[in-house]
Amino acid sequence: MGSKSKKIKKLQRKLKDLRAQLDADDGAPKVSPLAPTGFPDLPVVAGVRFAAAAAGVKYAGRTDVMLAVMDTGSSVAGVFTRSATRSSNVLDCQAKIGRASTDGAAIIVNSGNSNAFTGRAGDGSVVAICAAVAESTGLPPERVFTSSTGVIGERLPHERITAKTAELVAGLSAGGVEQAARAIMTTDTFAKGAGAEVTIGGKTVHIAGIAKGSGMIAPDMATMLVYIFTDAQIAQADLQTMLAGLTNTTFNCITVDSDTSTSDTLLLVATGASGVTVGANDADFETGLRGVMRDLAHQVVRDGEGATKFVEITATGARDDAEAHRAAMAVANSPLVKTAVAGEDPNWGRVVMAIGKSGAEADRDRLSIWFGDILVAKDGWVSPDYREKDGADYMTAQDLCIRFDLGIAKGTATVWTCDLTHGYITINADYRS
Amino acid sequence: MGSKSKKIKKLQRKLKDLRAQLDADDGAPKVSPLAPTGFPDLPVVAGVRFAAAAAGVKYAGRTDVMLAVMDTGSSVAGVFTRSATRSSNVLDCQAKIGRASTDGAAIIVNSGNSNAFTGRAGDGSVVAICAAVAESTGLPPERVFTSSTGVIGERLPHERITAKTAELVAGLSAGGVEQAARAIMTTDTFAKGAGAEVTIGGKTVHIAGIAKGSGMIAPDMATMLVYIFTDAQIAQADLQTMLAGLTNTTFNCITVDSDTSTSDTLLLVATGASGVTVGANDADFETGLRGVMRDLAHQVVRDGEGATKFVEITATGARDDAEAHRAAMAVANSPLVKTAVAGEDPNWGRVVMAIGKSGAEADRDRLSIWFGDILVAKDGWVSPDYREKDGADYMTAQDLCIRFDLGIAKGTATVWTCDLTHGYITINADYRS
Repeated sequence: MGSKSKKIKKLQRKLKDLRAQLDADDGAPKVSPLAPTGFPDLPVVAGVRFAAAAAGVKYAGRTDVMLAVMDTGSSVAGVFTRSATRSSNVLDCQAKIGRASTDGAAIIVNSGNSNAFTGRAGDGSVVAICAAVAESTGLPPERVFTSSTGVIGERLPHERITAKTAELVAGLSAGGVEQAARAIMTTDTFAKGAGAEVTIGGKTVHIAGIAKGSGMIAPDMATMLVYIFTDAQIAQADLQTMLAGLTNTTFNCITVDSDTSTSDTLLLVATGASGVTVGANDADFETGLRGVMRDLAHQVVRDGEGATKFVEITATGARDDAEAHRAAMAVANSPLVKTAVAGEDPNWGRVVMAIGKSGAEADRDRLSIWFGDILVAKDGWVSPDYREKDGADYMTAQDLCIRFDLGIAKGTATVWTCDLTHGYITINADYRS
Repeated sequence: MGSKSKKIKKLQRKLKDLRAQLDADDGAPKVSPLAPTGFPDLPVVAGVRFAAAAAGVKYAGRTDVMLAVMDTGSSVAGVFTRSATRSSNVLDCQAKIGRASTDGAAIIVNSGNSNAFTGRAGDGSVVAICAAVAESTGLPPERVFTSSTGVIGERLPHERITAKTAELVAGLSAGGVEQAARAIMTTDTFAKGAGAEVTIGGKTVHIAGIAKGSGMIAPDMATMLVYIFTDAQIAQADLQTMLAGLTNTTFNCITVDSDTSTSDTLLLVATGASGVTVGANDADFETGLRGVMRDLAHQVVRDGEGATKFVEITATGARDDAEAHRAAMAVANSPLVKTAVAGEDPNWGRVVMAIGKSGAEADRDRLSIWFGDILVAKDGWVSPDYREKDGADYMTAQDLCIRFDLGIAKGTATVWTCDLTHGYITINADYRS
């Protein structure tokens, strides 16, 4: 087949993709091709109840506020965006996290408006929402945590939310977690949940988490928000240590577009209602929690804007784990690697380029690269046994692994990303709606 | 107009854009809409001659090798990619730069193959090319500088280049600079040149430069290469200091896609043939040279893959100049800012986000943002006088200025970038050709 007819075929495929995109844009939101088949059956976590309501913050005809209320005895841990321009909600949560309180607690989240870069008025909105939840639940305001996600820089009509707190409290139920997950969606194309059961000393504790996000930040909205609940009993300081450690190998290892939200929030609640105490270094519990966190992190990538491929990138042989992470993230964030993945092009030269620019110690003649199990490059050049056709065949899969060994020392890291497609441009170059 | 009909209009516009793209892809390479009207009339620089030839390294029916030969008395300075996986050519140039030799010198550059990640064979190709040029010119091999640009990881057929060195030397002419600029193009849509004349002590010295590049690295090729020549007489150490300083405010301030090539090279040659000596701190000469470097840097951005907008981003009020540069580059590299520019969306919330993630010191309540002369945001919120329509009208221009003041101290920086469009995806998600 000549290069001309190949080109025409490729363009026809592109036009077909665009037409499908246009159709999708014109009707209901398309669901990511990487979405799981449905919302999982999550275990019930004793000591926490959920509710959702339609407050009309921005969207019509859908729920847009969720409330979770935790019983007395709950510890709350949190990690947050490091953005210098983070939202009023994040600043308020950070001020409240870390007290060793075992009062009850509440989390209230709205979609449609991020309350970010809304000046002092934004601070006031947080105070008003916390006061209303405190009044409706009988909890102290310093035990109410808020998140907001959606458009930046527009006043949050918090009166629409405070008008709903009594209705939300009346509707609280232990089984309301899926409704909560749906209420916090913005550009997400599917609701995200994950759960685990862990046996500790013959007794079972439960973990259930929900998340939203489809870009680090996206069409004016799309902060990543994550809320995870367990009925294990864990002291606040231990819970915070555990959360921070596990975040480094889960949520801090994903990237859709390298842009970091002003509102990213991850809260972890231990209600203690199971009566099972978990210490700081309980390996079984950590394994269960890590699984839930990794599953939710992967779901965020699988809902990445315009994503058609899910890519795991593993670096080994680096000077240390931090350098491995840096090199892997450079590959995961490279627009040229991500467009090559979109085009199903086994373009290992772009992987070399991204490793080279990462700042991690590297040496041309010690670097090896694999696509799946296929050794593509080693000893400073393409592998003698590598056949371009094998690489091209591999790249047609939906889930891909790119692995490289720097040959320097023992540092390793694994990160996850998606491809960069016309869909991303279409979503983000749109007018602000 | 309803939001539905707006959406349809928008989609129709998008389809029209894609059809135009398809038409362009199908025929001859489209020229960037941001291209200058033609190649400039460059001043003749005494002491240097140019030639180009068609060696068939990869392309057929076009020139793909350029040679520049400088007379005795020439100083050569250079700055190079910091990539850990840089090419054999870059390593060889770095080893040769910095000698205070005033022998003659030669620069030979091929397009079509980058000789990067080609193992020891790549080192051998550089040696072979330098030897052939040395033989044809009578220069010592350590005064021959090479660059290669094109596909990564394929053996450079250097014998096709060495077979042409005698022909190239025979064809050298003082007026051959435009042909040289054309021979080094890869995915560039126009040849890039800039020149200046500077009067020093009543005498005139001349500066002429050429460049190639349309991504930091691109469809397997598109390294940035820059060669600038002057007939001023400048000691090698002074020339190197001058070049490094001016690079920081010109070429190190542009970004197309945040990806850094394995082969970026900038060589500056002072032949001394004008007989006019220029010292280390000659302000007039530096102004002329800075103008040439900035002009070439802007041309690279204007030929950015898929670019339809040229964007100047200025940061003021930062802790220091380095923090200003970091914040400005975070805005310039943000996919969400770049897609907003493509969509003509005055989306200042994404600018806030990018500043926040940059790591530069920032404070929501001290930050101000302008689009052109329009004050968009201040005091931690949208400016009370700002009208969305004014911002939207401004964004329709082809050349844009985004400016922000951090309100912390006196640091400033200006950088340049382009938008991120469907064109970028189309170019880079293509099969490897």
